[in-house]
Amino acid sequence: MRLSQFHLRTEKETPADAEVISHKLMLKAGMIRKLAAGLYTWSPLGLRVMRKVEAVVREEMNRAGAIEMAMPSIQPKELWEETGRWAKFGPQLLKIRDRKEQDFCFTPTAEEAVTDFARNELASYKQLPVNFYQVTTKFRDEIRPRFGVMRAREFVMKDAYSFHIDDDSLAAEYRNMYDTYSRIFTRLGLKFRAVFADTGAIGGSASHEFHVLADSGEDALAFSETSDYAANVELAEAVSPGGRVAASESLRDIDTPTQKTCEDVAALMGIPLQRTAKSVAIIGSDADGKEQFVLALVRGDHMVNEIKLAKLPGMADYRLATEAEIADYLGSEPGFLGPLDAKKPIRVIADRSVAALADFVVGANKPGFHIAGVNWGRDLPEPETADIRNVVAGDASPDGKGVLGLARGIEVGHVFALGRKYSEAMKCTVLDANGKAVNPAMGCYGIGVSRIVAAAIEQNHDANGIRWPAAMAPWNVAVCVINPKNDSAVSDAAEALYAELKAAGFDAVLDDRGLRPGSMFADIELIGIPHRVVVSGRGLEAGTFEYRARDATESENLDHETLLGKLRG
Amino acid sequence: MRLSQFHLRTEKETPADAEVISHKLMLKAGMIRKLAAGLYTWSPLGLRVMRKVEAVVREEMNRAGAIEMAMPSIQPKELWEETGRWAKFGPQLLKIRDRKEQDFCFTPTAEEAVTDFARNELASYKQLPVNFYQVTTKFRDEIRPRFGVMRAREFVMKDAYSFHIDDDSLAAEYRNMYDTYSRIFTRLGLKFRAVFADTGAIGGSASHEFHVLADSGEDALAFSETSDYAANVELAEAVSPGGRVAASESLRDIDTPTQKTCEDVAALMGIPLQRTAKSVAIIGSDADGKEQFVLALVRGDHMVNEIKLAKLPGMADYRLATEAEIADYLGSEPGFLGPLDAKKPIRVIADRSVAALADFVVGANKPGFHIAGVNWGRDLPEPETADIRNVVAGDASPDGKGVLGLARGIEVGHVFALGRKYSEAMKCTVLDANGKAVNPAMGCYGIGVSRIVAAAIEQNHDANGIRWPAAMAPWNVAVCVINPKNDSAVSDAAEALYAELKAAGFDAVLDDRGLRPGSMFADIELIGIPHRVVVSGRGLEAGTFEYRARDATESENLDHETLLGKLRG
Repeated sequence: MRLSQFHLRTEKETPADAEVISHKLMLKAGMIRKLAAGLYTWSPLGLRVMRKVEAVVREEMNRAGAIEMAMPSIQPKELWEETGRWAKFGPQLLKIRDRKEQDFCFTPTAEEAVTDFARNELASYKQLPVNFYQVTTKFRDEIRPRFGVMRAREFVMKDAYSFHIDDDSLAAEYRNMYDTYSRIFTRLGLKFRAVFADTGAIGGSASHEFHVLADSGEDALAFSETSDYAANVELAEAVSPGGRVAASESLRDIDTPTQKTCEDVAALMGIPLQRTAKSVAIIGSDADGKEQFVLALVRGDHMVNEIKLAKLPGMADYRLATEAEIADYLGSEPGFLGPLDAKKPIRVIADRSVAALADFVVGANKPGFHIAGVNWGRDLPEPETADIRNVVAGDASPDGKGVLGLARGIEVGHVFALGRKYSEAMKCTVLDANGKAVNPAMGCYGIGVSRIVAAAIEQNHDANGIRWPAAMAPWNVAVCVINPKNDSAVSDAAEALYAELKAAGFDAVLDDRGLRPGSMFADIELIGIPHRVVVSGRGLEAGTFEYRARDATESENLDHETLLGKLRG
Repeated sequence: MRLSQFHLRTEKETPADAEVISHKLMLKAGMIRKLAAGLYTWSPLGLRVMRKVEAVVREEMNRAGAIEMAMPSIQPKELWEETGRWAKFGPQLLKIRDRKEQDFCFTPTAEEAVTDFARNELASYKQLPVNFYQVTTKFRDEIRPRFGVMRAREFVMKDAYSFHIDDDSLAAEYRNMYDTYSRIFTRLGLKFRAVFADTGAIGGSASHEFHVLADSGEDALAFSETSDYAANVELAEAVSPGGRVAASESLRDIDTPTQKTCEDVAALMGIPLQRTAKSVAIIGSDADGKEQFVLALVRGDHMVNEIKLAKLPGMADYRLATEAEIADYLGSEPGFLGPLDAKKPIRVIADRSVAALADFVVGANKPGFHIAGVNWGRDLPEPETADIRNVVAGDASPDGKGVLGLARGIEVGHVFALGRKYSEAMKCTVLDANGKAVNPAMGCYGIGVSRIVAAAIEQNHDANGIRWPAAMAPWNVAVCVINPKNDSAVSDAAEALYAELKAAGFDAVLDDRGLRPGSMFADIELIGIPHRVVVSGRGLEAGTFEYRARDATESENLDHETLLGKLRG
């Protein structure tokens, strides 16, 4: 491709209304343009990148044995009512009434449509397993579309749906898709993690999210640095630190007139923060459903995990206690709370790491005082123990392998063992080997194709623009021509190099627009081309080309052979 | 691809509710499945064919210098109001209200969106000419969706839009696209014609439709058999047959008691039908807008063309005359009407071919009688003459080259020189070489990608199923294995041949499903694979493969070398 014949239009200014770096850079590089809230036109440059992602996704899905097909965007209400999702999906489902007053939606996902296809097409276990996929435009009517194509309303998704005669076959395909997704993100050159996900209401089936790691990611992830364990921080298990040591101190009041936080108390006492416990006063309910005052204890260096807490008995609808309730039960004001000397009976839930403490410090339930040398069993009963905190970096990995690190991630893929939820609701059956009609087990597997483009930029950029991984770059090598219109020797040499690179299989682009070098280089850096080669009169005289990798800080003058070697990697 | 790992599901029965052969065969071959009225799921087999069409379209558009991008399916009302098309497009425009009560449509075409893109992206004549295209899903809320994907509501269209600094540049790109479309349909292996189209309200700009020729086509086409002239029969000019001969007969009444049609009168008199003229009584309006009785005369072997007639002065809203009006003006009943001896003044419009007649026959305006030996100028005044008939096969071509043939066609492409209609309405300007803001001229160019699949079948089928042109076939060669599970020598030989064909670049498929030969061959014929090779135990013994082209009636036993030569063509 010659850039003079391509439509490239970059912006000098950084767009003011874009909140995240990928949105800013996609606008600045001219990859997308907003048509309306959450609706974007993909320019030739933007589409070129998206097509590279699509191609890798298709190749790997095909290699994995999945079969591409295509379902309509517009789907009838009756279909969605069979599973109850017409009502349940909520206002994100864009509902449409046609000229005959029939109701339809613009599909955000196609479980119903594919199950309808399957119940007509699949008759026998001999046709299973089968995995159908499509790469199509989807729509979610987001209440607040933002971050450009990261959370757009109209987007491109690869969705796949597999059908199985039994759970073993589903498990095998789930693993196959898990491995396929790993190959896809690896080929795309992205740093990613597969994260065990909460299956929530679906009921115990397996589910993994695939996250591109980026500081700006919406999700906090914990992962083992030495195994493939990874989970959302909201879900990652904080394992017990092991047995507690024997008590060695006696109980004593500590004068903490202004020290209301564990950090301040530990600093005053000159002890590690890990020896303190903070008490969070909340209201849950008892076995009879009556309100119950609860003190949740986590170590001074830990944070309560509200999702884990809410899963404990009586805590489904918990709330923070009011100051009046705290005064009533503990006789203190916040900042000095603790599990000893409560005025009324309370429930104490200690995080595993608090249950493992000896000689620790808590609030004294007296304004201005904490208590040190506290020991379970001696000074107060052994507590109810549970995992109620967020993991932190350095925690042992729950799989017993290595310690956890933390990262932020952007969800770009999801694999899901659905089971028979849809095949049962929609009466999709096949005959098994015994001639009996059974509901096939299903899996579904999604990849946010357009979102990957933005996520890759969040992970790969610098002050000068995008730094595409090789597989996603719009082109891999830019041949930049200095002054092409006035120097035919330079122009000829550039054309020759460009032709040579194309013939050798490089995805090369010739920047023959005749811009001044500064503007040209800024564009090439902004749009993230991995390799830049400059052809100039001075270089020709010296018999060299000026080469610079996108991630290098200096250019090098290379002769023809060395240059080609460099480009070949 | 191995068919055992592909989802192929053909139907034995011909679907009862399909009206046209392409719809029947696409259902029978399992290429599509209906989700709702006008909404179809494309099965893996169907999608495979559509992708072949897409690939050819993309390659040729890219070769022509057009640049691919992608615009949203969902577009805001405000945009469509800028051109007035929100109201004008009518109920085919699927209107949508989102959760915030904003109005959108599912785009049937993207002139507004691309002009919005252009007015933001294009600033200078230096960026022109440029031609943007996309291959995306479109929607038209057809009142009566039918014929499967031929007239579906949701469909895949390639739409392109070009921008130009002046009309010459537009004309050049129009020609470029015309040639590109010709290459696309030629590569797809389709018999087609580019047809000059009525530009109607657009105002004189150029427009051509591309039609796939098929007996079942909705459009009647006239084309020169020796030049590239082609037009819709509704529009094709019927040229004058030349000067009339001198009168040689005298006027005389012919007794035609029961002969009310030209055919019957000519048969009774033993004269050619071409010597008779039929009179169609209609009501138009005169220069003052008052109703006027008109007799339109066409030759006995011709048909009145209502579109041509309506373009004449005073005929815009013409209607057929009632029997009472006929009796009032002509004093006769229908079946015996003619331009002589009217009771009241009438307007007579003669088709060019009638104006060229001498000694011809018309109705006598007396029940039971016709008049022969009629001559213009002698028996009645020279008539108002116009082209008011449909052309027929054998007419001289309007371009003076050869004679016209007739065919029926399915419109699959359209090129259109739009001019400045959209750029003016949407205030899209660029600076010209003098620094003056001007509205760019535009062209638009559409191809019905999904429709081509159906049109190709209408053109290429037989009693056994589809006969794909090579470029559109899901696979080009089927290697059919007889009894693969029980004969490993056969199975090994088939695998080896399949691998050899793949390595040699053939798009081959291995039918390893283990079906009985009859069912297997029926499937391969139904889905239209151009070449079939059978590997059997008997063939192996003889050292031959059984080869049959889809369009052949007999198989041949060929040795390995001869087979490969045959497949290479």
